Amino acid sequence: MSTANTLTATEAVALMRAGTLSVEEMARACLARVAERDGAVQAWAYLDPDHVIAQARALDAAPVKGPLHGVPVGVKDMMFTADMPTQQGSPIYEGAFPKLDAAPVMSLRAAGALIFGKTVTTEFASTIVGGKARNAHDPERTPGGSSSGSAAAVADYQVAIGLGTQTGGSTMRPASYNGVIAYKPTWNVVSREGLKVYSLTCDTLGIYARSVADLDLLADVYRIEDDIKPPPFAIAGAKIAVCRSPAWGKAEPATRDALALGAAILAEAGAEVTELELPSMFDDILQQHHIVLRHEGRSAFLNDYLMHGAQLKDEFKATVENREGITLAQVRHAYDIAAQCRIAFDEIAAGFDAVLTPSATGEAPVGLGSTGDPSFNSMWTFLHTPVINVPGFKGPAGMPVGLSLTSARYTDRKLITVAAVVADLFKAKGNFPPA
Amino acid sequence: MSTANTLTATEAVALMRAGTLSVEEMARACLARVAERDGAVQAWAYLDPDHVIAQARALDAAPVKGPLHGVPVGVKDMMFTADMPTQQGSPIYEGAFPKLDAAPVMSLRAAGALIFGKTVTTEFASTIVGGKARNAHDPERTPGGSSSGSAAAVADYQVAIGLGTQTGGSTMRPASYNGVIAYKPTWNVVSREGLKVYSLTCDTLGIYARSVADLDLLADVYRIEDDIKPPPFAIAGAKIAVCRSPAWGKAEPATRDALALGAAILAEAGAEVTELELPSMFDDILQQHHIVLRHEGRSAFLNDYLMHGAQLKDEFKATVENREGITLAQVRHAYDIAAQCRIAFDEIAAGFDAVLTPSATGEAPVGLGSTGDPSFNSMWTFLHTPVINVPGFKGPAGMPVGLSLTSARYTDRKLITVAAVVADLFKAKGNFPPA
Repeated sequence: MSTANTLTATEAVALMRAGTLSVEEMARACLARVAERDGAVQAWAYLDPDHVIAQARALDAAPVKGPLHGVPVGVKDMMFTADMPTQQGSPIYEGAFPKLDAAPVMSLRAAGALIFGKTVTTEFASTIVGGKARNAHDPERTPGGSSSGSAAAVADYQVAIGLGTQTGGSTMRPASYNGVIAYKPTWNVVSREGLKVYSLTCDTLGIYARSVADLDLLADVYRIEDDIKPPPFAIAGAKIAVCRSPAWGKAEPATRDALALGAAILAEAGAEVTELELPSMFDDILQQHHIVLRHEGRSAFLNDYLMHGAQLKDEFKATVENREGITLAQVRHAYDIAAQCRIAFDEIAAGFDAVLTPSATGEAPVGLGSTGDPSFNSMWTFLHTPVINVPGFKGPAGMPVGLSLTSARYTDRKLITVAAVVADLFKAKGNFPPA
Repeated sequence: MSTANTLTATEAVALMRAGTLSVEEMARACLARVAERDGAVQAWAYLDPDHVIAQARALDAAPVKGPLHGVPVGVKDMMFTADMPTQQGSPIYEGAFPKLDAAPVMSLRAAGALIFGKTVTTEFASTIVGGKARNAHDPERTPGGSSSGSAAAVADYQVAIGLGTQTGGSTMRPASYNGVIAYKPTWNVVSREGLKVYSLTCDTLGIYARSVADLDLLADVYRIEDDIKPPPFAIAGAKIAVCRSPAWGKAEPATRDALALGAAILAEAGAEVTELELPSMFDDILQQHHIVLRHEGRSAFLNDYLMHGAQLKDEFKATVENREGITLAQVRHAYDIAAQCRIAFDEIAAGFDAVLTPSATGEAPVGLGSTGDPSFNSMWTFLHTPVINVPGFKGPAGMPVGLSLTSARYTDRKLITVAAVVADLFKAKGNFPPA
């Protein structure tokens, strides 16, 4: 059996563009992996093997091979796909099949990607109540959420690339729990058209991969650019900040140890590692994030509340009804504090090559009922900064723990350059080398 | 022939809920008006009279009558509708028919509205190049845009309510040109899910109506609330600011005269009218708005650029390719200035009951090639404040000219209360009384 499914997108696309590997072979290797592992991982909300093969053959026959030629991509089931249902993890949309591609899906298709199937999302990508998907490393544990299936499918070698989203911690936390690379670009540098709206201020596309080089590949397709093309990055002499963040009180030993070990690895490799204490303006930023989500959710879920109320989870009804009694004065304050924190953080981050910070409170929790705690991710989502999860650590149960790298808004390509070096270091010197 | 089509939504819904007027009668009156006037106005991108009647009969047979029972609504053709094509004013999407309702459409349907047809939009609601729609008062003149058809159809008594959007001046300018009421709520208090994305920061739903009472009706359905329910408003002793805005240099005599007359009418009615000079921070806000639109358009049009480039207008390609060479440092600065101006304007506006400001540079220009100049609207869109266009004035060619009322973010219901009084005054004392 082919093991093409274990190739990264960068590796696979080189072979497929050269004609050494056919897209159909690649697709069949991924389908075989799914057949073998789906009972344990259950990452897919919709997957039609015949349609995958038909797409693969069409790509093999295509006269032009795009930059993502044949790369199998799992798409979170809250992004519209013209050829597959989009069910939002919700009973309201069971079998729903609006025939259009979300913008980020269309761009990948235009680049030659093989849209493989739809991955499990929590309901509307807006709750921490888990779906059927399991952690790629332990079926008794959550894969995290809301991008549950995309993270698990990429970690489990079922597809090379997964699309997710993040409003709180929906991309980074699952990446940490499943031991994969993930990238949340600066807010809105990738279109979110055709994705379920929860919070316009925070919703951001997320990308899962098994190598940092793949992030460059996708960033090229999405035309994500910095003002200055980043020069080659060397860790020796680099300035790295370590930010425990306002969520530090929630860090479990697994996360505390990972951050300490990660910082030590970078220092040992010659980086100048500095502890970063954020100004007091950031102290209650998680509360401000919560207020904005509750506020923006009021309008985001109103239509289903009015039209399909009986099938809507009570937590969404509570949001629409503003049962927390959040005032608009609080909302305005939350927006304005966030805007000021964005300015302040960009100034701080300009003094460093990257900021290292936790990706999750600890290992993936046991059980599928909750997808875990997004506290370490929400601030960065709210600040609109690019974030990359880098695996390399493990917790007491042997489960993966990742760390996040972040930087100022619109320095995505520089951050990818830094993450490539850091990922290699963590892989070599950390305590959770991927298989 | 029934003249039910001339009723406001508030008037019509009262009759239809009481059973005095059937929805089918209402629908037939509107269809008759369209049949009579469509040759001149051409407001519709899609309209199927049989489907309108079928919907009307279903509403007449419905056991429950919603708050918008039977109200005919024209929907801008860049909002998805489950039962009609959505063609975006673009050759790329000619005949496109993804079967889903945009969130603001679904909410109106849940409230019993009759979704009448799709109204002409400029391409992707993102250009000032005009479509086929004409001004309701003069077929040789533009109706404005991008919400061209919704404004003209409501002004021409073809439907009671029109949905539009505004990213620069796409709702208010057409309202001024066609002599109708229009309301742009505070940013994102109505969901924009299922609407073409141009600029997440600026895109906002807009509502056309022929009475301010109808805005209350719609605001109730969309659950738009202030922190404090506004008390009854009296113009005597009210504090009204007159803001010429940084676009004042573009004001034609029609607009200068309208603003002077509007201010005089309010002063004569007992309001304390004050000239408002904005701080220097606002001086280049139109340039900042331009930078944000050009930046956000890069990601918004990328997917069609990659997939359908040959059918995409060059101006969209120019945006995707960033031919203006806008730097991300400029973008960041523009976002941050806007955030600071929002805070500053809210503080200023708190000292007034409302701010009176132009809705357009002058009368609707002759010709259909350009939909006119949005300079007087863009700042308010960027500031996220609620805005209501109130007709009441005319220019040298006898065409309508409106004025805008605006106020701090999240004071929409107060603004509607003020607009109701001001609209009556302008109707009584202005020089363009509606027919």
